[in-house]
Amino acid sequence: NSSLRLFSLKGNQPLAEEIAEHIGIPLGKITVQHFSDEEVQVNIEESVRGCDVFVVQPTSQPVNEHLMQLLIMIDALKRASAATINIVMPYYGYARQDRKSRAREPITAKLVANLIETAGADRVISLDLHAPQIQGFFDIPIDHLMGVPILSDYFLEHKDMNFDEVVVVSPDHGGVTRARKMADRLKTPIAIIDKRRPRPNVAEVMNIVGEIEGRTAIIIDDIIDTGGTMKLAAQALLDKGAKEVYACCTHPVLSGPAISRIEESVIKELVVTNSIQLPEEKKIDKIVELSVGELMAQAIVRVYEEESVSILFDN
Amino acid sequence: NSSLRLFSLKGNQPLAEEIAEHIGIPLGKITVQHFSDEEVQVNIEESVRGCDVFVVQPTSQPVNEHLMQLLIMIDALKRASAATINIVMPYYGYARQDRKSRAREPITAKLVANLIETAGADRVISLDLHAPQIQGFFDIPIDHLMGVPILSDYFLEHKDMNFDEVVVVSPDHGGVTRARKMADRLKTPIAIIDKRRPRPNVAEVMNIVGEIEGRTAIIIDDIIDTGGTMKLAAQALLDKGAKEVYACCTHPVLSGPAISRIEESVIKELVVTNSIQLPEEKKIDKIVELSVGELMAQAIVRVYEEESVSILFDN
Ligand SMILES: Nc1ncnc2c1ncn2[C@@H]1O[C@H](COP(=O)(O)O)[C@@H](O)[C@H]1O
Ligand SMILES: Nc1ncnc2c1ncn2[C@@H]1O[C@H](COP(=O)(O)O)[C@@H](O)[C@H]1O
Repeated sequence: NSSLRLFSLKGNQPLAEEIAEHIGIPLGKITVQHFSDEEVQVNIEESVRGCDVFVVQPTSQPVNEHLMQLLIMIDALKRASAATINIVMPYYGYARQDRKSRAREPITAKLVANLIETAGADRVISLDLHAPQIQGFFDIPIDHLMGVPILSDYFLEHKDMNFDEVVVVSPDHGGVTRARKMADRLKTPIAIIDKRRPRPNVAEVMNIVGEIEGRTAIIIDDIIDTGGTMKLAAQALLDKGAKEVYACCTHPVLSGPAISRIEESVIKELVVTNSIQLPEEKKIDKIVELSVGELMAQAIVRVYEEESVSILFDN
Repeated sequence: NSSLRLFSLKGNQPLAEEIAEHIGIPLGKITVQHFSDEEVQVNIEESVRGCDVFVVQPTSQPVNEHLMQLLIMIDALKRASAATINIVMPYYGYARQDRKSRAREPITAKLVANLIETAGADRVISLDLHAPQIQGFFDIPIDHLMGVPILSDYFLEHKDMNFDEVVVVSPDHGGVTRARKMADRLKTPIAIIDKRRPRPNVAEVMNIVGEIEGRTAIIIDDIIDTGGTMKLAAQALLDKGAKEVYACCTHPVLSGPAISRIEESVIKELVVTNSIQLPEEKKIDKIVELSVGELMAQAIVRVYEEESVSILFDN
C-alpha cells in the first residue's frame, strides 16, 4: 500500500487536527494564502508523489472561497502525482440546490459534484448529505456517513432521561427517515410536524402528527440554517403539550438571525456536530458540540485499507 | 438564426449595459442574490430556450464569488435549453497562475478553463489574457481581443503629444510584444525595463534598454495589480532622463496599496479600460477610464452572426 497523507484546507482545521490525531499521523504541510487581489494561493510543502492523499474541507461559509480552495488543491495534487485524491467533506455546500423546483433554476449540487470530478478527485467522503440522491451526482465512489449514531449516543449517555417519555420529532416530511433512525436507537416513538398553508398568503399552520403530550421532544434535522423553522417547531410542540424540547442537527450552518433565534426559543439545548466549525461568537451556552473526528478518521482508514465504509457507517 | 440574449452577472453591470446599448438590445432579466448563508442564487426571469445567450462576467475581485456566479449561471442556462452559451469575460481571473513555476503548484488558469467547460459553456470571448497560451487551455472556441488599439487611440486622439518624442516602454521582458504593437500604432520606438538581481538578497536593479533621454515615456502592461512595479519603473525612467511618464494597462486590478502608490508615483496619468469595474474610491484624478463596451459588442455580434472575430480584433 502507498502511504497515507492527510491535509487540511481552511474549512475546519480543528476537526482536521482531531482526525489526524485519531489516525495517528501528522497533518501534511501546506500553506493556503491569498495574493493581494484575494486569489487563492495553495502551496503543498511536502512530496505527495504516489501517496493516497486525503483532504479535509467542508464547503461551509464562505462557500465559494472554500470550494475554490478545494478545487485548486485537487489540481495541485493531481499535477504533483498523488496516487489517489480523496476528499473529506463533512459538510457539502450547495446541497440544498439539488433539484429544479422552478423553471430555469440551476442544480448547483450537481454542478459542484462535476467540478470536484473535473478537478481530479478520485473519491469523496461526506456526512448527512441534504438529499442522499446527491451520491448519484458523482461518477466517482462516494462514502456517505451518518450523524444519527453520534447524536443519539449523546442523549443516551449524557442525558438522564426516561426514554419511555421521549419522542423524536421530524420538523418536516423530508426528515422522517432520519427521525425514524434516531427513534430506533433511543427506542422511542416519532412525531412529524406537518406544515400546511390553508390558503395562499395565509400563515402556515403547524400540525403535529403523533403523540407528544407530556413527553420530552427531541427535534432532529440535518441542517439548521436561520433557525426559523426550529424556533417555531419548538414553540408548537410546547403549545401542544410537550414537556420540554431539545433540538439536534448534524450541520450547524447557523446563518443570519440563527443564534438570537435559538437564544430566544423555548429549545432547552441544541446539539450539533463539528462538521462545520463554529466561530467563537456562535458558541453559546445552549449549544453542545459533538465531534465527528473519530467517525471521519475511521472512514479514512477504511478507505485507505480498501475496506467497505458503507457497511460500517451508512446506517 | 435563433435569437440573441445578453445577460449580466454582478462582475461589471455598467459595462454590460454599455454593451447592450451598442448592440441595441435590452439586458435579459435575471436576479443574482444570496441565500442567508451566502450561497449564490441565480434566477433567470425569462425564457432562453433555443437562444444564443451571451453572459457578461469578468472574474475580478471577489474572484471566487464571481466565478461561482458564472458557473451556476451556465448550469442554469444549460438546463433551460439555451442553444449556445457564450461567456464574455473581459477579465480572466487566476490568469497569472498559468504554469508551474515551483514543485506542486496548481495551474489554476487551466483549472478555471476546465470548470467553465464542464459547467457547459460553448464559447468564451476574452480580452488581453495574461498569457495568450491560455487560449489553448480551452477545447471550446475562444476569441481573444486586444486592448492595445483602444489604449493607443486615446493617446493619438486625446493627447497633444509630439509622437516623434515618445517612447513606449515595456515594464518587463514578457510585455515586449504588447509594447511593440502599441509603438507600431503610435509610430514610436520602444524601450524595455530590464530588471536584474545582481546577487541573491540584493535589491533589483532597473536597467533600461533603449533610448528614453528627453522623451515622453508611455509604460504599457496588461494588468496593474499592487502598482509596485509600475511606481518603480516610472521613477527609474525619470531618473534616467525621460521627460515625463504616462502609464496604461488593460486590467486595473489595483489591489492593496495600488491607489496610494499611483498617487505618490511620478506617473502623470494612468490610462485603463473598464474590463474591471472600478469602485468609486479608486476613481482618482490620475486615472482615465476607457470603455471596451463597443469592442465587446462588436465581438458578440460577429460571434452571433458566425463571422470571424479574430481577423478583426486580434491584432
Ligand atoms: N443556501 C440556501 N439557503 C436557503 N434555501 C436554499 C439554499 N439553497 C437552496 N435553497 C432552497 O431550498 C429549497 C430546497 O430545500 P429543501 O426543500 O429543504 O430540500 C429549494 O427551494 C432551494 O431553492
Ligand atoms: N493573483 C496573483 N497576484 C500576484 N501574483 C500572482 C497571482 N497569481 C499568480 N501569481 C504569481 O505570479 C507569477 C506569474 O506572473 P508572471 O510572471 O507575470 O506571469 C507566478 O509566480 C504566480 O505564482
